[in-house]
This record gives sequence, structure tokens and C-alpha cells, in this order.
Amino acid sequence: MNDQNLDNAVPPASTDSLLSPADIEFLLYDWLRVDKLCERERFAGHSRETFDSVLAASEELAKEHFAPHARKSDLNEPTFDGESVTLIPEIKTALERFADVGLLSATMDEEVGGIQLPQTVATACFTWFQSANIATSSYPMLTMANASLLLEYGTREQIETFVRPEIEGRFFGTMCLSEPEIGSSLGDVTTRAVPDPGGDEGTYRLHGTKMWISGGDHELSENIVHLVLARAEGDVPGTKGLSLFIVPKHLVSNDGSLGERNDVVLSGLNHKMGWRGTTNTLLNFGEGTHTPHGSGGAIGYLVGECGKGLSYMFHMMNSARIGVGAGAVALGYHGYLDALRYARERRQGRSDDGRGKDSPQVPIIEHADVRRMLLSSKSYVEGGLGLILYAATLLDESETADTEADRARAALLLDVLTPIVKTWPSVWGLKANDHAIQVLGGAGYTRDHAVEQLYRDNRLNPIHEGTHGIQAKDLLGRKVIMAGGEGLKILVEEMRSTLAEAAGGTSWNAESGALSEAIDRVETVTAAVWKSAEPVHALENAWTYLEAVGHTVIAWLWLQQGMAAEAAVRSRGDSALRRGKIAAARYFFVHELPQTGPWFDLVESGPSTFTDLDDTCL
Amino acid sequence: MNDQNLDNAVPPASTDSLLSPADIEFLLYDWLRVDKLCERERFAGHSRETFDSVLAASEELAKEHFAPHARKSDLNEPTFDGESVTLIPEIKTALERFADVGLLSATMDEEVGGIQLPQTVATACFTWFQSANIATSSYPMLTMANASLLLEYGTREQIETFVRPEIEGRFFGTMCLSEPEIGSSLGDVTTRAVPDPGGDEGTYRLHGTKMWISGGDHELSENIVHLVLARAEGDVPGTKGLSLFIVPKHLVSNDGSLGERNDVVLSGLNHKMGWRGTTNTLLNFGEGTHTPHGSGGAIGYLVGECGKGLSYMFHMMNSARIGVGAGAVALGYHGYLDALRYARERRQGRSDDGRGKDSPQVPIIEHADVRRMLLSSKSYVEGGLGLILYAATLLDESETADTEADRARAALLLDVLTPIVKTWPSVWGLKANDHAIQVLGGAGYTRDHAVEQLYRDNRLNPIHEGTHGIQAKDLLGRKVIMAGGEGLKILVEEMRSTLAEAAGGTSWNAESGALSEAIDRVETVTAAVWKSAEPVHALENAWTYLEAVGHTVIAWLWLQQGMAAEAAVRSRGDSALRRGKIAAARYFFVHELPQTGPWFDLVESGPSTFTDLDDTCL
Repeated sequence: MNDQNLDNAVPPASTDSLLSPADIEFLLYDWLRVDKLCERERFAGHSRETFDSVLAASEELAKEHFAPHARKSDLNEPTFDGESVTLIPEIKTALERFADVGLLSATMDEEVGGIQLPQTVATACFTWFQSANIATSSYPMLTMANASLLLEYGTREQIETFVRPEIEGRFFGTMCLSEPEIGSSLGDVTTRAVPDPGGDEGTYRLHGTKMWISGGDHELSENIVHLVLARAEGDVPGTKGLSLFIVPKHLVSNDGSLGERNDVVLSGLNHKMGWRGTTNTLLNFGEGTHTPHGSGGAIGYLVGECGKGLSYMFHMMNSARIGVGAGAVALGYHGYLDALRYARERRQGRSDDGRGKDSPQVPIIEHADVRRMLLSSKSYVEGGLGLILYAATLLDESETADTEADRARAALLLDVLTPIVKTWPSVWGLKANDHAIQVLGGAGYTRDHAVEQLYRDNRLNPIHEGTHGIQAKDLLGRKVIMAGGEGLKILVEEMRSTLAEAAGGTSWNAESGALSEAIDRVETVTAAVWKSAEPVHALENAWTYLEAVGHTVIAWLWLQQGMAAEAAVRSRGDSALRRGKIAAARYFFVHELPQTGPWFDLVESGPSTFTDLDDTCL
Repeated sequence: MNDQNLDNAVPPASTDSLLSPADIEFLLYDWLRVDKLCERERFAGHSRETFDSVLAASEELAKEHFAPHARKSDLNEPTFDGESVTLIPEIKTALERFADVGLLSATMDEEVGGIQLPQTVATACFTWFQSANIATSSYPMLTMANASLLLEYGTREQIETFVRPEIEGRFFGTMCLSEPEIGSSLGDVTTRAVPDPGGDEGTYRLHGTKMWISGGDHELSENIVHLVLARAEGDVPGTKGLSLFIVPKHLVSNDGSLGERNDVVLSGLNHKMGWRGTTNTLLNFGEGTHTPHGSGGAIGYLVGECGKGLSYMFHMMNSARIGVGAGAVALGYHGYLDALRYARERRQGRSDDGRGKDSPQVPIIEHADVRRMLLSSKSYVEGGLGLILYAATLLDESETADTEADRARAALLLDVLTPIVKTWPSVWGLKANDHAIQVLGGAGYTRDHAVEQLYRDNRLNPIHEGTHGIQAKDLLGRKVIMAGGEGLKILVEEMRSTLAEAAGGTSWNAESGALSEAIDRVETVTAAVWKSAEPVHALENAWTYLEAVGHTVIAWLWLQQGMAAEAAVRSRGDSALRRGKIAAARYFFVHELPQTGPWFDLVESGPSTFTDLDDTCL
């Protein structure tokens, strides 16, 4: 206190409670057994030791270079003087370190300089950075997703010119989809591309405006590689007429040196509730500020084939959606650990049993309601991290499983789960941040504690990379019915196979019974929705469906975590971590899963409250 | 966009969607029939016309002088240079206008200069200011509560010296309960008071530190009247040893002129997530910066009797808790209306039925998921405002009903409902703000729209004036069992009498059946909790109990609103407002009330998840 200008006096960042290394160890090894991946050819160069050393390096780097400026970058938003964007210098330093240790290409092939780390391990590593500083970690997240897309669909020359400098941390990447009037409805994109008369085959001139572009401008890297969705001249309306273009901020010469300024111009910065260290921009393409190669229009290079832009972009979006889920978990996790520490230290009040009236106040962790908030938060963030890492194993399986059938099965299951992976942590991780503020009380509402910022930062996650509403329609309207319902069938099979495992012992009987009922309901409710309904009615309660299936999936994964913890107790003895896992699993079944009852009921009964609504009465 | 420094370029404030005057009219007249109050002696000078004119004046003033600086005061926090606090000048102007129209004494007796407005009408008036600018409206809210307390318990001289200038807007008031180490546990207050050797009877010297004091320092008024909870020398530990003292910032001479500076010193300002226009302070009492009347200690005047401080403070806290609920509703309401307007204007996407693929995009209000968010928000904010105004009618009844028995009954019912009145709107009004951001999407996450700030402002409401956890224990641990359970019995009787009314027609059969079941559960679950349980176990699921009873109460009031709307349709014809009321009522029963099932189940089954938890495993 007693300071008159806290905004410039940045409080010391806490670095000791970003995530739990013991939990990550449990999830990766006791539960998901990622060390077994080293038996596969792609990961033959790895071992538990190499995994652990990258994890440890990530933790260290996150604490040393990402966490310390998280509050400072919140309090000192990017500024734009009309020429260039200024960010606090700590961001650049952190990102240079990140590139130095090779993390930008963690999962990529050795032939492009990558270290061929499994996605599961790389995802776990990256949550350290997201927990420490979601805003600063956005730049590498976008750059890695951008590079991955180009590795998949770009030409050798495009990879050489743009991906290699991205991997080296010299170029950063963006994804440019939205426009001022086009958010969720990408089929309406108006940015247009015309073949460049003076350019090579595949070179276009772009004109249009892109909105909400994260990392859209800054001086953090030598160059920025925009991946822009636009409609090539003469192509059909709707999503099928969209193509993808590489539009670099600076043109790149054949020898790799930077050439002219391209006509991509920052028009303004968005001022956000949180996530402030990430520039979020309105960009003009080809408005005439610059005239690259002497004529008008931003120069862009077609990626792959015309008309396939959106399908390529989905490659990036799917990994971005897992990344958003992971970020939401990481922020929730950080908040939970801060609240936990506070609850152990802060003394207030006495026991409800009336004892100890004259003794000193007790740590608030002794109060039932504080424990409720902490244990539920634990179930959200550890359950959410479990979901994220499980999804990442599916990515690994889809890429490296021994048989084509196994790879296809994993890919389909991941496809079904993606809307849940993106959404569930964004709802419940944010709930953990909400609880964290509540545990701290008035203190949690001030900028003296990280929990205040974590809550604001996390509020973005339900919005970007497809809002909740979009994800819900994606799950119920596409994912569970695609391929004849095969994806959903696989999910149900996987969940039932856990029930079969649980049936061996007796300690999870109650939970297994409850989960079995919920799985049945997933099947029957899905069938009921699609039995007779027109899509317009079927989708009307899609959000509630997403909530219900999401909670069922998390309950299933908690049962797995609980059983894995019990197995570890049997083989290696009791520990606080293992007891905690069992307590959180049981909590989820007693306090959370029952809430799905009315949700399933609602979707099954299918009221048309919203479609029938006369909206003039709102 | 295109501005490089939005923080200083304040966006124009929206003033056209703070609340719905038509809704207020419906609630006050069609439903609550407040015009009937004019038949009572206290309100004989009033009529529907006088009510309407004060309501209209409030709306106008809120739009003209409160709304326009809401964002500006968010972006320009109070600063403290070590001597005095600087606020943006618009705050002072707004509060002068507020005082000018006599609103500070709206409900007070004519003999002290009040206008004897019913609490119900005054509460409705005040929601305009809370919706427009919760931070600026805090100053009069605190001052009115402070003055009301002194009118009830102060001496004639204290009223003359402190209340009269408060009513005139020359002095502002605070309530000083918390200390740096004492938040919810008021029995542990350490601020001490010793009789002033050189002072009159009842004059004390205070020493201590108070934390989280809203309006604790500023230059908005000539003086600040702190009401301070402290322990007089020699008094017992715990809450029974607490007394209440008036501690003015400046001493006041017998002729009413300001005298010496008292030793109340601002030690620092808290920097909050929202609600930034209200100074929130750490205050030192009697640390020696000033030596009023030549010696040490802040001079304070005892209110009423020693040892009764907390019971007096509860007088203020109870009205403050209704005020917090009202503020939470008002912020949610504002957000809902902003989202509604945006949803009507913003075009994006097309119908799920696949029609109109080639036609222009539709306003997003046509999408089911947007309607879900809007209709649920409507049910939260109009349901919440209904709760607040109903609570205010109980306040009026408790003060002016014809018989002592009726007054006592209303007071008891209000007492039971107070934790719900404080809490339900803080949860669900905030949910409406959350939905409002989601409806606006990325735009809602920026500071270009009010919804961003409304969400941050509203996050305080679950914390101050008793956290949710405290309210939950108050409801289940005290309110529903006090007076032999008489308060709960009255609530159940009132709810059942609505069922009896509904039984007359047929259009609310389904809703009545569902409500009847929920009422039964309130009774049985409450009995089950207290049947055998020790308090420590009984209270362990108090929060879930509060949620379940809260939703039941709101369903009950929605049934009343729905029936009142239908009656109005019958007598005066159809209207969008009446259709909207009926739609929101039916929504609440189909989509919201069923969620109470698992909540009641949980409380009834009474798992001891939290008390049994070994917290080292968290």
C-alpha cells in the first residue's frame, strides 16, 4: 500500500505456482504412459530423460522470462505511434530465449531442424508458458501453428523462405480470417486476390481488411508471415471460393534477405480486457500505403490449390483450438495454485463447530466453503489438463500409431473431441479463476494479485478460435453425425472400455455406475435429437448438449485418473498427489456429474424455446 | 479504430439502454401495485404521478450526469499524491445534481427534509444510477445508508451535526468494518477506543487501521462521516465487545462549521479490477499525523450503547446488501440491453435451416444460441429486479403495514430473503454480463463497448457486504432456523399462496407443478439438513442450498410476473412487454428451475466431501 502509483510500480510476479510438476509427471507417465511412445520409430531418439529435460527447461524458462513481466505487460499495453508498435522489451527477450532452446520446432521433423518431440510432451511443455504469461506465449503459439500449416501444404520454396526463419524465431506468424463485418461467417469473406500480372505463377495482389489479428504487427521479429484467407478473382461465393495466401510484412528476396515493405498496414490496435501483451490488430491489405514492386495491392503467395483455403486453415485452427483449451486450463491452474497458497496462509475466522472461539484464527483452507472452491477448481484444472494431454496423445496416435486403422481411429476421435477440448476448459478453467478471486476475497479483486489478471485474460478463451456457440453447433451438428456417427461410436467405445477396466476392482463401483448412465444418455440423447428434428430445431439446444457431453467426458477421464492414482498407490505407495487425484475424481462424480441430468433431459425433450421465440418481445 | 491512444479518447457513453422504463412500470404497478401504498398515512402525500415524476427525474439525471463519465472514470482511476485524492470532476458534478433533486433523503421523514417515498419506489429510482455508473452511485448509496443508521440510533445532536449535512450532500458517509487482517471475521476487530479524557461523555479516541473502505477519502464533499466499528477499552473479545463510533474526517463545531482535521489518514488506495471511480482505501485512525484538540487518537463519538455496534451496523448492512443485489441487477440489465441492441443490428451468418444461403447475412438475434443468451439474461435481470423490488416492498411493509403482526411478518420474510437478495443477482446478473460479452464476441472483449467494463464492475458484487460463502451460512445456518423456523415457514406460505392463485387458470399448470415440487424440496431438504447434523456438517453444502433456494424463489416470482402479465393482457391487451414477461417466465421454468434437482439432491444426501477432506492433498 502507501504507493500512489501502483500502475508503474509493478508488483513482484509470483513464479512458484504456475503448474504442478508432480501433476504433469503423473499425467504423462502414470496415466498416459507417454514413455511408451519412445518405442516408435519417430521418437526413437527420445526417452523419459529427454522428455523430462525439455519439461524442466520449459518450466525454468517460463519462470525466468515469461512470468516476471506478465503483470507489467498487462499494465503497459502496446502503443502505436502511427509508424510502429512499441511493446515492453521483456517480451522480445523472452521470445528470443524461447527460440534459442529450440522450442519453436519442438514437434517438427529433424530434417527441418525440429526435435521430433511427441505432441503430448510438447503440449505439456507449452502449458508452462501459457500459465506464466498467456499474452507473450501467443506469439510462438501462432508462429508454430503457422509453420505447421506451411510444412503440410506449402511448397519447398515457401518452406525454405518462410518456415525456416519462423523456426529460427526470426519471422513470426499470424492467421488472418476475420474481417470487420465477418467473424464467425467465414463464407462471407470479402478480401480479394487477383493474379499479379508482373509476378510469378501463384503470386497475387490482395485487397481487403482483416480484423482481430493477433500478433498482426510489432517489432518483435524481423518479419511477419500473415496467412490470409481471401477470395481469388472469379471464384465462387461461400467458403468454397476461399484460398489461402502467404502475405509477408516485408518481401523476402531469393537469398533470404528482406526486401521491400509489402502493403500490409496496421490501421489500429484493439484495446482489450486482458491478454494485453498480445497486439490485436486491424490490418489493411493493399490500400496503397506501399507499392511493392511498383504497383498496387499487397503481394501474396497462394498456398496449395485455389478454393481449399478454409480446409488448410482448419489444420491450423484445430491445433489452435487445442491450444486455446490448453491456455484456458493453464490460466485456471495458475489461479487455483495462487488461491491454494493464499488459503493456506491467510487466517480468518474459526471452525463452524464453535470450538476454539478464543484461539487464534484458522487458515481459511479449514473452511468448508473455501475447500469447496479449491477442490472444485482442482477438478476443473487437473481434469482440464488431463483432457488436453489426452487430446494430444490422440494427435500423436493419429500421426504415429502402427496401423492405418489406429491412426484413423485416433484422428476421428480427436475430431469429435475438439469442440470439447476448446470449450470445456474455457468454461471451467475460467470458473477456477473466478473461484480464485473469491478465495482471496477483496484482495483478489485488486491488481495486487495475479488472480485478477488471470480472470480477465481467460475471458477471451470462450470467444476466439470459434465461440462456444460455434463449437456447440460443430459438435452436435457435425462431429457426432459425421461418418455415419462413427466418431461418436468410437468415443462411446473408449468410455465403455474404461468401465470394463473399472469393473475389475470395487472401489469405483459408484462412479462407474454413474458414468455408465451418462454414457447411455449421450447415445440416446444424440439419437433423439436427430431422430426427427430438422437441423434448425436439432441445434437449438446444442450448447446444453456440449455442456452435458463435456462433463461426461471429463468424468470419464477423472475415473481414469483416479484408477491410475490408485494403481500407483498399490505399486509405489501413498502420496499427497495420489490422494488428491482420488479426492478430486470422487468430488467430480458426487458434485459435478449429477448436474448433467437436467442438461440431458432438456436436450432430449427438445423444447423449441429459442426458435419459436418472437424476438420483438425481448 | 485508427486511434493510438484510446485510453485518453473516451468513447461516447451509451445512454439509451440502461434499464427498461416499461419494465419498471410493469413491476411497480402491474405486479407489485405500489400505487396502493399511497393509501397509507406515511405516503398520503404521494400518488402514482409523484412516483412517476421521481422515476423520470432519476432516469434523466442518470443518463445526463452518471452514464457519460462511466468509462472515463474507469480509465482514469483516482490518484493520491500523498496529500489528497484526485477524481475526474464529472463525479462531483453528478453528485451535486443528485443532492440537488433531493434524492439523498428520498425515503426519509419529512421532518428531516425527506420526501417519504416508499422504499420500493426509491429502490427503483436508484437502479437507474447503478446501471448508469455503479462507481459514482456508490457515494450516495453509502451516504444514505450511513444517514439512515444514524437516524435510527444516533442522538438528536448527532443527527443535527452529521445527518443533516449528509442529506444536503455536504458530508458523505462510509462504513468502516474490515481491517487488514479482519475481513469476514468481525469478532476479531482490533481497532480500539478509549474514552477521551478531555472530551464530553461519549467521546473517545480511536486507534487502528481499516481496510477496503469505499469512499474512505476524496474531495467530493466538505467532510466524510466514518462509522467505525471498534472495541472500547475493557470490553469483551468477540462481536459483543464491539461499539460503533462516528469519526468525522474534519471535526464539526457546535455551529456546524468545520473545525480541525481529525486523525483519520489515508494510507493508500486499492487498485481494483473495476468499480474504479469509487475510491477504496486503507485508513489509519489515530496514528499521530494529526492531533485533534491537541492530543493523540482520532476523535470518535459513540453511537447508542457500548457493545451494540455490530447490531447497529447490521441495520446498515442489511440495506447495503439489498443495495448490492440491486447494483448487480442493474449492471446485468445494462449489459443485457446493450447485447440486445447489438444483436438486432449486427449481421452475421444465416439460418441453420440452410435457407437464404445466397441472401444477405441475418441479424444475429435470429440465431438460436444468441437468443438463448438473451432470453436467459432477460430472465436473470428482470427476475433479479423483480426480487429486489419485491424485497423493497417487504421493507415498506415492515415499516408501514397496518398491523404489528403484518409488519413483523414482512420483516421476518425479508430477513430470510436477504442472503438471496444479495447473492442471486450477484451470480446471475454477472452471468448476464458474461453473456453480453459473448453476444458481442471479440468486440465485447474490447474497451470500445460498455459490456467489458460492466463485467469487471459486477465481479465485485459476489465479494463485498459479505461474500457468497458468508451469505450461504447466514441462510442455512441462521435465517431458515431462526425463530423456530418461522421465517422459512412464512416464505413457504407465501410461495404456496401464489400456487393457489395460479390454480385458478390453466395456463400455468406445468409451472405450478414444478414450483410446488421445488417448494416441497425446500422444506424437506432444510429439515433433512438439520435433523441430525452437527452445524459443521450441516453447513458444508450451504452454498449449493443457497443456489437451489435462490432459483426456487426466482421461479416463484417469475410465476407471479407471468401471471401479472397475463392479467394485463386480458385487461388491457397484448404488448411486446407482456409477451416478453410470459416468454421469460416460461423459459425460467423449462431451462433453469430443473437445475435445482441435483442441487437439492446433493444437499439432502449431505456428503461430507469438504469437511472430511485432507487438505494437504490439494
